Amino acid sequence: MAEQIAIIGAGPGGYAAALRASSLGAKVTLVEREGVGGTCLNWGCIPSKIMKTTADLLLKFNEAQKYGINVQGPVALDMVALMARKQALIQTQQQGILSLLKKGRVTVLMGRAKIKAMGLLTVTDDSGTRTEIAFDRLILATGTIPLNVPAFAFNGRTILSSNDLLSLKQIPPSIIIVGGGVIGCEFAFILAALGSAVTVVEAMDRLLPLDSVDTACSKLLLREMKKRKIKVILDRSVTTCEPHDRGVSVMVGASPFSNLKTGATVTPVKIEVSAMAVCIGRTPLSKDLGLEAIGLKTDGQGWIPVNDAMETTIKGVYAIGDITGPANIMLAHVATHEAMVAAENATGGTRTMSYNAVPNAIFTMPEIGTVGLSEEGCQKKGIDAQCFTVNFRAIGKAQVMGEIAGEAKIVLERPSGRVLGLHLIGPHATDLIAEGALAVKKGLTISDLAETIHAHPTLAEIVSELALKATGKALHG
Amino acid sequence: MAEQIAIIGAGPGGYAAALRASSLGAKVTLVEREGVGGTCLNWGCIPSKIMKTTADLLLKFNEAQKYGINVQGPVALDMVALMARKQALIQTQQQGILSLLKKGRVTVLMGRAKIKAMGLLTVTDDSGTRTEIAFDRLILATGTIPLNVPAFAFNGRTILSSNDLLSLKQIPPSIIIVGGGVIGCEFAFILAALGSAVTVVEAMDRLLPLDSVDTACSKLLLREMKKRKIKVILDRSVTTCEPHDRGVSVMVGASPFSNLKTGATVTPVKIEVSAMAVCIGRTPLSKDLGLEAIGLKTDGQGWIPVNDAMETTIKGVYAIGDITGPANIMLAHVATHEAMVAAENATGGTRTMSYNAVPNAIFTMPEIGTVGLSEEGCQKKGIDAQCFTVNFRAIGKAQVMGEIAGEAKIVLERPSGRVLGLHLIGPHATDLIAEGALAVKKGLTISDLAETIHAHPTLAEIVSELALKATGKALHG
Repeated sequence: MAEQIAIIGAGPGGYAAALRASSLGAKVTLVEREGVGGTCLNWGCIPSKIMKTTADLLLKFNEAQKYGINVQGPVALDMVALMARKQALIQTQQQGILSLLKKGRVTVLMGRAKIKAMGLLTVTDDSGTRTEIAFDRLILATGTIPLNVPAFAFNGRTILSSNDLLSLKQIPPSIIIVGGGVIGCEFAFILAALGSAVTVVEAMDRLLPLDSVDTACSKLLLREMKKRKIKVILDRSVTTCEPHDRGVSVMVGASPFSNLKTGATVTPVKIEVSAMAVCIGRTPLSKDLGLEAIGLKTDGQGWIPVNDAMETTIKGVYAIGDITGPANIMLAHVATHEAMVAAENATGGTRTMSYNAVPNAIFTMPEIGTVGLSEEGCQKKGIDAQCFTVNFRAIGKAQVMGEIAGEAKIVLERPSGRVLGLHLIGPHATDLIAEGALAVKKGLTISDLAETIHAHPTLAEIVSELALKATGKALHG
Repeated sequence: MAEQIAIIGAGPGGYAAALRASSLGAKVTLVEREGVGGTCLNWGCIPSKIMKTTADLLLKFNEAQKYGINVQGPVALDMVALMARKQALIQTQQQGILSLLKKGRVTVLMGRAKIKAMGLLTVTDDSGTRTEIAFDRLILATGTIPLNVPAFAFNGRTILSSNDLLSLKQIPPSIIIVGGGVIGCEFAFILAALGSAVTVVEAMDRLLPLDSVDTACSKLLLREMKKRKIKVILDRSVTTCEPHDRGVSVMVGASPFSNLKTGATVTPVKIEVSAMAVCIGRTPLSKDLGLEAIGLKTDGQGWIPVNDAMETTIKGVYAIGDITGPANIMLAHVATHEAMVAAENATGGTRTMSYNAVPNAIFTMPEIGTVGLSEEGCQKKGIDAQCFTVNFRAIGKAQVMGEIAGEAKIVLERPSGRVLGLHLIGPHATDLIAEGALAVKKGLTISDLAETIHAHPTLAEIVSELALKATGKALHG
């Protein structure tokens, strides 16, 4: 008889695991409590990029004359239409996923899952109806929600989560974004383009303070924020906030994470804004799952530890996606790959997950695409590396598009010339990084990239320019 | 004493060769008769993409409401501003090249070069001043101009070359484009977007009838032309044309290249249009160079044959770029690579040029990016290949951008799974093809692509989807 596999959570990891396990012959039940497609489709990647598409277009329209287009009369954002487009696209994608699941003979149940014992869980739907599901193997893919800290409790009106930002009825005239990480920086550009006066407060000394992002990208991003009149306050924290009728009073003071100077006193500053968005992290959805019924323990923060087969400490129980915690990189494309590993192992396979060469795509303006080690990452690890940088303004296509802000840095192992990392900030960086991911994954060298002809006039030529520079043959750099 | 190298033609090949040879210690003189940057910068890649940038933006205005943007009042093309932008960008790029050449200690002479003997040429500038240049090695990089056939002689008013199309003062209300190759198809979309009623006449039975373009791309492009109300007449030729006061009368009849049915009679059709553009090929600039003074013979059509060291039949005389003819692929990025080979060999090196894995970037709407073998190419060569196709509509980012038309086809060697070709038609295809070029160049397999994580939500995910499909693990395809 076919293996019965239950999967909790129908985000990108959950539904990919369901499709894969089913294609391998298992009888799969997929349980989702809220929205098929998970955070990615409903409250993350997709809706934020839908907003960004409109934001990008609005910026282009504002500079139409530069491209030889006369616009008589006003150009205005229509939030109702934008939100309708967002909703329609999410629904189309959900229908798409559901039809793939149907075609893949996966049983989908909407409701809250609760593990009762090894081999048994219940699903309770909105009407209170309870269904029992037997399983041989279990895959946990419940993901996360925005971190809600008591001092800045979300109220949906003046203190907003990233979920709230994706369902705005109108753009706040002014906003403070707490946290200059990926989500904070993406929204800073989107909201500024859509008409808000944006201030970003980041507790560390740079935007995007992530190991995977080279500091050069952070520095250039800071410059671009300034160009767009986004105020950036680094090395400071929001200490308190007071919502009131017309908005929120925010105190910005010393940062507990400051790694600049110790001992210096910081005079707190009060800032009045229409709204505050808190983008300081996400929290795992591992409570109320009944993990205790099978003796599965989370770590202190609620993340579920797994080995490289994506199996938890309990045999036959796997976890994938964001629920496995930040150490495993919380990105949809990572979850999809983990899903394949878990599904194959749950059906008798022996695959392991590799986190080598995971690309990052950050949808700021300009975009950022990174993969592999950064320059500082190599220094920290004591790797002898050599870096080369080329500006996007050296690329004809960037000039043609009128999008010349940006740069590319390649990180090479010395003396082998092996590509250890690629860090792009510039137009189409999130697409261009794919070539870098392939190079890092396959251990290719700078000579391999130099030999590869890149089409003209394309943005991908920046890789050729990097390669020419690194091999001492620079043309435009 | 340093080797003296003379280079005739300052297009992408010529100036790259000059910079490279100079960096290797040669004393380099670069002669250009018309525009530094050559066809690419002055009458090709760059100005046509500047027009396309505006055309793309104009199309976005037309569907602004879809993205949640209200545009009140009319939106109009300003040809004067567009042409001014074009001119300004060309000048900036020219200045950039000139400053690179100066920094690279290359002597640049404007004027017509004439070879007098092995080791000697003269340059005559516009004022008639003649300079003698001695050389040890010579690199010919004179390129091509649009093919001007007597029956459709360019008049710059009603019968236009691609050069004329790049300097239009106004968009012709209607236009016939003779030739559905790369240039013809690119202009068809640009001119249609800018407001012209466009008809494309192609003598073969498909658009882009090139070995390097898979017929699937041609088919999809035809559909997209129809969507944009571009009339396409395949398997027919323009037989005669009569320019008159208000435009041109064009007869469209049987095609001498028809490979459909023989014997069928074709009733010629008369079409009245404001203008006709002739985009049926390019002709080499090899006359009047004085090649006979060194005994260098061109082929029957005027192309200069070279070996894989880029050396002509005359020792010490090299040729690069379009002047070497269509067999060597007439593309700027090929010329740049040939330039490196020629420059290194001219200074004592021993490099050879490889035409393996040359990507194509075609700026239609949607864009096309191809590399390596097509499905039919494999059939013709008797290679056992397997192909897989995924539609761009399956990619979340394409949905988000509202640009879902397109597809990707991967060509794999059987049974090895080695990537022989990638054929993309869709958003950002010209950038995305870089990953395919690297895969083909390095002989990577479909498993290599499947293992490589592609960032979400990006268009590059189409490569992941192809890989999943090819390895039997399709998710969205």
